[in-house]
Amino acid sequence: MSSNLIVQKYGGTSVGSVEKIRGVAKRIKKSRDAGKDVLVVVSAMAGETDKLLNMAHELSDLPERREIDLLLSSGERISSALLSIALHDMGCPAVALTGRQMGLVTDNTHTRARIKEINAGRASDILKKNHVVVCAGFQGVNDMGDVTTLGRGGSDTSAVALAVALKADLCEIYTDVKGVYTADPRMVPNARKLNMVSFEEMLEMASLGAKVLQIRCVEFANNFNMPLVVRSTFDEGDEGTRICQENPDMEQPVVSGVMYDKNQSKITIKGVPDQPGIAAKIFNALAEASISVDMIIQNVSAEGHTDISFTLPNTNLQEAMSIMEKKGKEVQAESVSSDSNISKISVVGAGMRSHSGVAARIFSTLSNNKINIMMISTSEIRVSCVIDSKGTEQAVRALHDEFKLEEEPVQVSQPATDASPTA
Amino acid sequence: MSSNLIVQKYGGTSVGSVEKIRGVAKRIKKSRDAGKDVLVVVSAMAGETDKLLNMAHELSDLPERREIDLLLSSGERISSALLSIALHDMGCPAVALTGRQMGLVTDNTHTRARIKEINAGRASDILKKNHVVVCAGFQGVNDMGDVTTLGRGGSDTSAVALAVALKADLCEIYTDVKGVYTADPRMVPNARKLNMVSFEEMLEMASLGAKVLQIRCVEFANNFNMPLVVRSTFDEGDEGTRICQENPDMEQPVVSGVMYDKNQSKITIKGVPDQPGIAAKIFNALAEASISVDMIIQNVSAEGHTDISFTLPNTNLQEAMSIMEKKGKEVQAESVSSDSNISKISVVGAGMRSHSGVAARIFSTLSNNKINIMMISTSEIRVSCVIDSKGTEQAVRALHDEFKLEEEPVQVSQPATDASPTA
Repeated sequence: MSSNLIVQKYGGTSVGSVEKIRGVAKRIKKSRDAGKDVLVVVSAMAGETDKLLNMAHELSDLPERREIDLLLSSGERISSALLSIALHDMGCPAVALTGRQMGLVTDNTHTRARIKEINAGRASDILKKNHVVVCAGFQGVNDMGDVTTLGRGGSDTSAVALAVALKADLCEIYTDVKGVYTADPRMVPNARKLNMVSFEEMLEMASLGAKVLQIRCVEFANNFNMPLVVRSTFDEGDEGTRICQENPDMEQPVVSGVMYDKNQSKITIKGVPDQPGIAAKIFNALAEASISVDMIIQNVSAEGHTDISFTLPNTNLQEAMSIMEKKGKEVQAESVSSDSNISKISVVGAGMRSHSGVAARIFSTLSNNKINIMMISTSEIRVSCVIDSKGTEQAVRALHDEFKLEEEPVQVSQPATDASPTA
Repeated sequence: MSSNLIVQKYGGTSVGSVEKIRGVAKRIKKSRDAGKDVLVVVSAMAGETDKLLNMAHELSDLPERREIDLLLSSGERISSALLSIALHDMGCPAVALTGRQMGLVTDNTHTRARIKEINAGRASDILKKNHVVVCAGFQGVNDMGDVTTLGRGGSDTSAVALAVALKADLCEIYTDVKGVYTADPRMVPNARKLNMVSFEEMLEMASLGAKVLQIRCVEFANNFNMPLVVRSTFDEGDEGTRICQENPDMEQPVVSGVMYDKNQSKITIKGVPDQPGIAAKIFNALAEASISVDMIIQNVSAEGHTDISFTLPNTNLQEAMSIMEKKGKEVQAESVSSDSNISKISVVGAGMRSHSGVAARIFSTLSNNKINIMMISTSEIRVSCVIDSKGTEQAVRALHDEFKLEEEPVQVSQPATDASPTA
């Protein structure tokens, strides 16, 4: 089943200078010298995409999306050509391929295109010659032959898609951190790097703001069961974090990590008449403005009236408030208020499925730390609480301690199901 | 016959910043508002190509040519996308096209590819919709679909080729000077901008080091009789210099300009036995090393021996001398010496064909200024002299004065050939 092919994706900081590109080339050569076929996907050099985007925005408040894609795709073309040149110089034959040349065909949604198909014939031919393929990440072409891009973090998705198309064993995502941690190491000094995370957990973590992987890339890997490894470009000794399907042999701690998100705000509408259709009115108005709402709670208050609170990204607060003030009047609400000093704390773990009492432990921990919970939401493998943002650090550290995340989990071996102890 | 299409090419300094790109967009919009169809070809932003090339050379002494083409082509993709964005922002619909999208197919000679054909169907369709086409200069694709580039100054050639393919009326080359001058204005303060120059004159001037146009672009325009106009991006009032075929109505001054080239060296081989085949031996060795020789003179010296002198670019002097020292021994020459303090002064004018005595006036002028002539070469419309480089400025100014180049030439009307004065 093994194809001997490994896909390696290097992010912008990994190829941020000529010197770093040379370092990446050495690392690739090592994999190839070890007998692997290697296909590499690169991002633009760190800062390049922002530089190009800033020029476009200096020229136009609303630059044409088609031209933005042509503009931004240059960044990855540059880094892929330079990396290929560096590999050649080390005696490691390599061929740089653009989105078109790697056969990455997308729909026509410029700046956030979806992959339709991959015709990786050329990449496959190059690999058969025992050359390294260096693909420009983040980009494809639509049916008209115009350049499209996959949106921010799209290079991760390019890498997984190519790994799936070419039936690679593994897709390695090289970045500037060692892997996925139990908590943000800048906030929790004893945060531990996780050796394994399930796709489901990683999906929750990515949607909660873990920036190490884009949610789309994890979805893609999960759909096609392509194992991912997140690891550091600059620390060869560390094996990083493996992200794959859950299986019975996998270590399954109850809780894998504690996440926080300070970039949320809360809007509260008080004293809304408790009639059918009011909530629909409010949230339809937000949906029409393309504002995505995260948590929603509704409490019955006195005399047939109700209070509704919801959270949303900080960046949408101003627009949402002006909509809500209008809608509030329409539905005869008592008041509309907002709070941007909130923080969402989340505890994620695949083991929650089989272990009860996790939510209760979270609430107790916060309570013992005199941290008030404003809102709660849960999924099968996650519990999130909105708190006052002042308490963020204290809450994250306390929960990290409560679930002993700094300790390597004990591997619990499954009891053999056909064992008959007394026979 | 008129197609209403105008091709405008903007060089690197013309699009060297976001502010300048906006200025170029305004200029294009003005042409379109005046009822013209406009196809634009842009170079990379000034400095961009060198920046990319330097990174490649930091990574490898001999970077792969295929990858260099992928790398460098990004510069023009960036400027074309930005210019298209600027045009959109002014309410002037535009579409940026890459080398592939404009249908510019080349041979496979990476970094200095030759154009094989242009399939400009897409550009033509866009023009029919009354949109501006913004083409990334300097680049094409080969039959394999790999990016190729046309060599330095290739954007001028792209522009002429597209103008020919789309049957444009005119190809305008926008740059940072007002046009073609009678002499380098930095050396000759009263140098005059020429309103018209013939293709033949421009070919001589380009090969003599006039940097305003690449020789290949002029050859292409001459072959397909596509009129060129060289004009300033930053001075809208000036109509620049028109370069086109000679015709009877064209002003035909005897001399159009005085050029100089200080980047030449001279090698002299003395006392070569005067036998057949010796010169061939010497110059074959240089040709094998891809060193192009400019002027050659051979004098018979005493006793069946001969002296050979030739000029070549400074950059090849060292290599040529080491070849010549070897060859000199082989052919039993007395000595081999070199002189890099020389300068080639050239006088160019299509009117020389019908006016005799120009060479004599040049020699007299130099002689009156006590400037010694080391070598002479001529073509139908050019006289070149090699002199000591110390005399360069004096020679150029004296010749400029001698032929009264600072004065607008008097338009001499041709006598009607069928006039019979006494009838």
